Amino acid sequence: MRILGIDPGYAIVGYGVVDYAKNRFSVAGYGAITTKAKTPFPERLSVIYDDMCEIIEKYKPDRLSIEKLYFNTNSTTAIDVAHARGVIVLAARHKGVDIFEYTPLQVKQAVTGYGRAEKHQVMEMVKNLLDLKAIPKPDDTADALAIAICDGHYSDSLLRR
Amino acid sequence: MRILGIDPGYAIVGYGVVDYAKNRFSVAGYGAITTKAKTPFPERLSVIYDDMCEIIEKYKPDRLSIEKLYFNTNSTTAIDVAHARGVIVLAARHKGVDIFEYTPLQVKQAVTGYGRAEKHQVMEMVKNLLDLKAIPKPDDTADALAIAICDGHYSDSLLRR
Repeated sequence: MRILGIDPGYAIVGYGVVDYAKNRFSVAGYGAITTKAKTPFPERLSVIYDDMCEIIEKYKPDRLSIEKLYFNTNSTTAIDVAHARGVIVLAARHKGVDIFEYTPLQVKQAVTGYGRAEKHQVMEMVKNLLDLKAIPKPDDTADALAIAICDGHYSDSLLRR
Repeated sequence: MRILGIDPGYAIVGYGVVDYAKNRFSVAGYGAITTKAKTPFPERLSVIYDDMCEIIEKYKPDRLSIEKLYFNTNSTTAIDVAHARGVIVLAARHKGVDIFEYTPLQVKQAVTGYGRAEKHQVMEMVKNLLDLKAIPKPDDTADALAIAICDGHYSDSLLRR
């Protein structure tokens, strides 16, 4: 099963593609879509949509997993991230890929076994589980891989349904 | 000049099309895109995108005006509205229509001359300015027409630039 994990954003969208079979993960690809602050916002959304479609066509994932959005410190940023996330979900829908959502707590829990794990612990586990030489950069990419790993674990679990 | 006004939402997207020339408004069409609560969210976004594209193709507006989003009472709702708004902006961008944003204060000010006007006063003014027999329903439709009227006023004003 091939899973595309997405860490949503409007300046950086992290993506990570993992293959999951027999309780083992391997990495198929990862990276980040980036848009420039100077670019008008509708154009940034358009770049994200186009790049998402391209990534899905290239990797042909069986499913897409993406982090849920919450409001913490900066609600203006959260609104803009939600705009981008809407466009990401639309791209997946247009390409016929099923979408699964996880909270940051679920991701930490699934990757490290501990919901309150520190960010660097999650990153280390991503590196180890995927047998990578280094933690992928930017952080958004490593986060996207963590979300894909989380989805792999949950897809196995009957508890989820 | 033909303006498409949009009141963004995910259950109801109000739209209103007005022609503005020589300081006079006339209505070309209005209505609402609706999506059902039972429908999965990605599908709702897809319906909104498709219907937006259809409305733009039908009315061929010169510009699209849309309300800015703010956080008030319900931030979960606001996140979902922002998802839908991202998809609406993407549809406009895909169809090559320029997008202009206004705050609720700007809309009230432009339509009634008074930023603290009550909702029903805005509705009455929309009816009068557009020479309609009744206030269009649902409210989202009348709001969309108000946003289009606001855009007409601002497009005239050099102060805006």
